[in-house]
Amino acid sequence: SLDVTNNDAQTSHSTAVLPGLINISSFVPSFDDFEAATKTSLAAGFTYNAFLPQTVNGSTITDLDSLADAIGSASSAAYSDYSLYIAASETNVEEAAEAADSAGALFIPFNDFVKSKVSSISAHFASWPESKPIITDAKATDLASVLLLASLHNRSIHITNVSFKEDLSLIKMAKEKKLQVTCDVSVYSLFLTREDFPKLPFLPTKEDQDALWEGLADVDCFSIGVLPTVVSKTVNNKVAPGLGVSDALPLLFSAVKDGKLTIEDITKRFHDNPVKIFRIPKQDAVVEIDLDRSLKNLDLSPFKNNKLRGFVERVSLHGETACLDGAILSTSAVGKHEIAPRGRFGSVTGSVPQSPVLN
Amino acid sequence: SLDVTNNDAQTSHSTAVLPGLINISSFVPSFDDFEAATKTSLAAGFTYNAFLPQTVNGSTITDLDSLADAIGSASSAAYSDYSLYIAASETNVEEAAEAADSAGALFIPFNDFVKSKVSSISAHFASWPESKPIITDAKATDLASVLLLASLHNRSIHITNVSFKEDLSLIKMAKEKKLQVTCDVSVYSLFLTREDFPKLPFLPTKEDQDALWEGLADVDCFSIGVLPTVVSKTVNNKVAPGLGVSDALPLLFSAVKDGKLTIEDITKRFHDNPVKIFRIPKQDAVVEIDLDRSLKNLDLSPFKNNKLRGFVERVSLHGETACLDGAILSTSAVGKHEIAPRGRFGSVTGSVPQSPVLN
Ligand SMILES: [Zn+2]
Ligand SMILES: [Zn+2]
Ligand SMILES: [Zn+2]
Ligand SMILES: [Zn+2]
Ligand SMILES: [Zn+2]
Ligand SMILES: [Zn+2]
Ligand SMILES: [Zn+2]
Ligand SMILES: [Zn+2]
Repeated sequence: SLDVTNNDAQTSHSTAVLPGLINISSFVPSFDDFEAATKTSLAAGFTYNAFLPQTVNGSTITDLDSLADAIGSASSAAYSDYSLYIAASETNVEEAAEAADSAGALFIPFNDFVKSKVSSISAHFASWPESKPIITDAKATDLASVLLLASLHNRSIHITNVSFKEDLSLIKMAKEKKLQVTCDVSVYSLFLTREDFPKLPFLPTKEDQDALWEGLADVDCFSIGVLPTVVSKTVNNKVAPGLGVSDALPLLFSAVKDGKLTIEDITKRFHDNPVKIFRIPKQDAVVEIDLDRSLKNLDLSPFKNNKLRGFVERVSLHGETACLDGAILSTSAVGKHEIAPRGRFGSVTGSVPQSPVLN
Repeated sequence: SLDVTNNDAQTSHSTAVLPGLINISSFVPSFDDFEAATKTSLAAGFTYNAFLPQTVNGSTITDLDSLADAIGSASSAAYSDYSLYIAASETNVEEAAEAADSAGALFIPFNDFVKSKVSSISAHFASWPESKPIITDAKATDLASVLLLASLHNRSIHITNVSFKEDLSLIKMAKEKKLQVTCDVSVYSLFLTREDFPKLPFLPTKEDQDALWEGLADVDCFSIGVLPTVVSKTVNNKVAPGLGVSDALPLLFSAVKDGKLTIEDITKRFHDNPVKIFRIPKQDAVVEIDLDRSLKNLDLSPFKNNKLRGFVERVSLHGETACLDGAILSTSAVGKHEIAPRGRFGSVTGSVPQSPVLN
């Protein structure tokens, strides 16, 4: 296993070697930000970014044309491997399905659905190809609703950014009844509460956060998502590419130090399970982390005063060192558009066909 | 079968003989209205009323105390047999379950649930005894949500007052996937549209109404419910006990004349299926209807100018003629509190134990 912690004799630093990590809900403020976002990602240990179809302007990728445009922008700018999701809307059932072959997944942004939610989301479930994942940010009643629709259509569904106790227990109950549901929790939700930021109602309360930690067995993936961006926008009135990426691993390693998590827990949720759930092609990517070295340049992070430790010293991608001591060595956009090939989509718990090695 | 239409030789009138009909969602403006409501019901062919736990003051029956009070009021005033539902709320999970033995069913009024809908309704599903029915007025996303919860808890659920195409197709899909769901449509929804009453958004559109007629195979019961009361309140600014009861059968018989329905369709949905779904004890009750005789005294009905025909000439209950030519013959409140005994609750489609003859 790559998940080992060694004591570096020469420096007395603890190091960890992980496979290249996967950001399953990467957010860019605009599609001009792929270079900045992927460089920040790479330096933070994330060698694969699955980009959300939303920018600060709302849902932007909604059909094959807009998806192709975004892939074009990313292909000339990405320093990590990547894919892009397409956003479901009340009116694009056919267009979304037409674009499925080029998309990483269908993303259902629940706030975009105002009326006839049930029938239009049901239509997406009926049209979107079975071999391709579906991911949604549904909460509360919407979550229950989308779980029913997934079940009625015999489809897998991934719930992203689970923040509340109620939602995690519903997912747990659904899993116990063998519904094909997986979920992720944003790293920020494990370390920030509404009590810390009363102006941010989308953050978990302390009680919710305790439930997320206690229910970690049912959390299949960790994510970054839009939460760090929304926090920074509210707190700093500033948005930038790659927010929440640099502090993610150091925050989780701090929990490892506190005995709340193992490194295996991190690898499973930021690599192994994302690969299975989103059928991400195998990457030849390795990340070496110095667990004791402290981070700098976290100006927009709410954790900038926490003296976070866990510095990514080396990242290799496609057999070459892409990042060393925080500096990007790749001199061009070496990121590849890598999406799941057509084929039957398996759930995490079911038997998952091994993803082919593409490079 | 009792469902026969004869030509009455002496008068040349067509008559139908039906079993005493069952109103599964009877509404009284207040609990002082049991006498008026049950007399109107009896005269209209309904020998059993399952009363909703709401009055014009909102949810009134919410625990054993309020249920016992309402049963007390009804017992001294009811001219039909009856039961009362208890209303679920965000705070009465335990109280409701405690009162289950004396209640006809648990009614989940979705508008009463504001926050933590999913977890509190889930708690009701977990606490309410399996032998007792659950009924709800959920629509749209709430409907999908409650169907999921029923499924996760392996419970039957009855959806009342289905009004929209989207909701009926969701129920149809759920039935196809063997979820234990049944539903009813209010008679008014089959004959009034939003186009007729633009101020009443809870009425089906013409398109919805067409879907209700076309999807009648998935409509297990007919109901009356609160719809006639809400229509009268908006149109006439008046509320009275028994609204919508007198015009229900004549409206349906007009559809029989138009070839859109059979008498068997009516008996199934206003007697046979209600008995099974709500496990209503067997009644010795018979209704004789003159299909050609016209109705009077429909002042508050939106159908008062339709010259409705189908006059209930005789109703017998408990072996005696209780109503003749519209006049109540019973000289006291002969209605009995009749609820399903404890035992396993079966779905309509499953094997239903024969209800015992209690009188
Ligand atoms: Zn297009
Ligand atoms: Zn990998
Ligand atoms: Zn070091
Ligand atoms: Zn490679
Ligand atoms: Zn009480
Ligand atoms: Zn009967
Ligand atoms: Zn006659
Ligand atoms: Zn009797």
